[in-house]
Amino acid sequence: VSRVLVTGASGFIGPHALRPLVEAGHEVHAVARRRPPADGLAGVTWHQADLLERPADVVAELAPERLLHLAWCTQAPVWTDIANVRWVEATLALVRAFAAAGGARAVLTGTCAEYEWGGAGSYDERRSPLRPATLYGIAKHATRTVVEAAAGELDIETAWGRVFFLYGPGESENRLVPAITAALIRGEPARTGPGELRRDYLHVADAGAALAALVDADVQGAVNIASGEGPQLRALAEQIARIVGRDDLLEVGALPPRPGDPEELIADVTRLRDEVGFEPRVELADGLASTVAWWRERVGT
Amino acid sequence: VSRVLVTGASGFIGPHALRPLVEAGHEVHAVARRRPPADGLAGVTWHQADLLERPADVVAELAPERLLHLAWCTQAPVWTDIANVRWVEATLALVRAFAAAGGARAVLTGTCAEYEWGGAGSYDERRSPLRPATLYGIAKHATRTVVEAAAGELDIETAWGRVFFLYGPGESENRLVPAITAALIRGEPARTGPGELRRDYLHVADAGAALAALVDADVQGAVNIASGEGPQLRALAEQIARIVGRDDLLEVGALPPRPGDPEELIADVTRLRDEVGFEPRVELADGLASTVAWWRERVGT
Repeated sequence: VSRVLVTGASGFIGPHALRPLVEAGHEVHAVARRRPPADGLAGVTWHQADLLERPADVVAELAPERLLHLAWCTQAPVWTDIANVRWVEATLALVRAFAAAGGARAVLTGTCAEYEWGGAGSYDERRSPLRPATLYGIAKHATRTVVEAAAGELDIETAWGRVFFLYGPGESENRLVPAITAALIRGEPARTGPGELRRDYLHVADAGAALAALVDADVQGAVNIASGEGPQLRALAEQIARIVGRDDLLEVGALPPRPGDPEELIADVTRLRDEVGFEPRVELADGLASTVAWWRERVGT
Repeated sequence: VSRVLVTGASGFIGPHALRPLVEAGHEVHAVARRRPPADGLAGVTWHQADLLERPADVVAELAPERLLHLAWCTQAPVWTDIANVRWVEATLALVRAFAAAGGARAVLTGTCAEYEWGGAGSYDERRSPLRPATLYGIAKHATRTVVEAAAGELDIETAWGRVFFLYGPGESENRLVPAITAALIRGEPARTGPGELRRDYLHVADAGAALAALVDADVQGAVNIASGEGPQLRALAEQIARIVGRDDLLEVGALPPRPGDPEELIADVTRLRDEVGFEPRVELADGLASTVAWWRERVGT
């Protein structure tokens, strides 16, 4: 049992990481830039802080033993957002302050955009080449290399949860699953790019639980946070349309492919399963059904 | 003619970059952490600032059109100094502030330690793999990738002077040339590692002039700042010993090789010569002679 600090705690993944950390018996502290949720989880102490402005203060004050750093810019388009640069700076300062306050283990989060996209087969943390092509991927990759190189001098352990594609309640509407879901619920056509592309989708509750498990593990280095499954986007979209009951409004392939979009982005999840000991619990059909239900409550039909 | 800001201006390279920038007619501003030199070069306006604490203030105030960023940690051992992490943060913040203040072209400085060491032949900016193995090299490499990826969004040009081995007056005494020189002048034995290693040594005055030329050029990306020549360390040491007149005290090969030390570290200087239009002016024999003379004035014999 440790004192654990979670940043980005009110974001998309954050709430799903807090619950398993509380259930594991940790003293859980959560940081959010905005005011903490009124209906927050029992057992979590909330702190309001702007990590971009003052990244060191909250860790210096709390002296947590473990850190789960989820905060990063999320405003679309994240791929080219100059805020990525500020998050490199803030993350490095946060990790230094965490170590200076006596912290022992920091879990940070990366992205499948760190890998060199292209080719077939799944992405493996140890063998697949890293060659990010976007500011987002480059900023995350740069952060990881510096943190890992400094970990010895800082006398901390570090792990890096490399997150693939997520879905679930609360996702930004500009992302694929919410865009299709909300459009169909509104009775509008849902147009997608090529349906043959395969993407590794994990339910956000599983992503939170996997990262909480990584906080508790002693694995170091990068670990893919993913399902290991790569449904075609066509199948994913059709499943959503069936749940909503509006197959008639789905137009797969109506949009052109985006330049640089690879055929397959699927994770090898051997490390997550065998070394962290985590397996996803939410089946895609169930996860999509509850996501659709969540959107039905929020979208006027 | 532009307003040019030089950071690290009172360091080893800095003074040698200021003069050619003044001679080119620029309005030259220099930043140093300590008090500006009393015998400073005419035409240079000095500013005292701690870039680690407040990286943005001096650029926000001056709004320079061009930036030559030389400041970085220099305390030995720089390879593992945790200050490297702070310099990543400070450099990114500095570049963002430079762009926000309307800056047009930023020249930053890297290191031959960004390259994957090993193998024969010279290191080429476009083809040689980058795989830094030290915190210093990793921090510099990470900085470069983020700055280059952000340059488009920041609407600035960037170039990256990748500095190899330097020598000349004012170098830290823990480095090879000063260590040998000072020991021999004191009449003490000078012990070195294996003499067969080849290193690309450039006189610091040439390094400063090369970086000043890069500020004035429109070349983007990495440019090796080096001589293109790779004398054996034995020959270098023997040349120093002859100048001092103490061949008898030189013990080449008395120290074991350092792990990971490659046989050859020599730059391909095609870009520097053909694209920047710069060629070194200081011959090794002359440069060593004036370096020895500089140390004679400072070392009690």
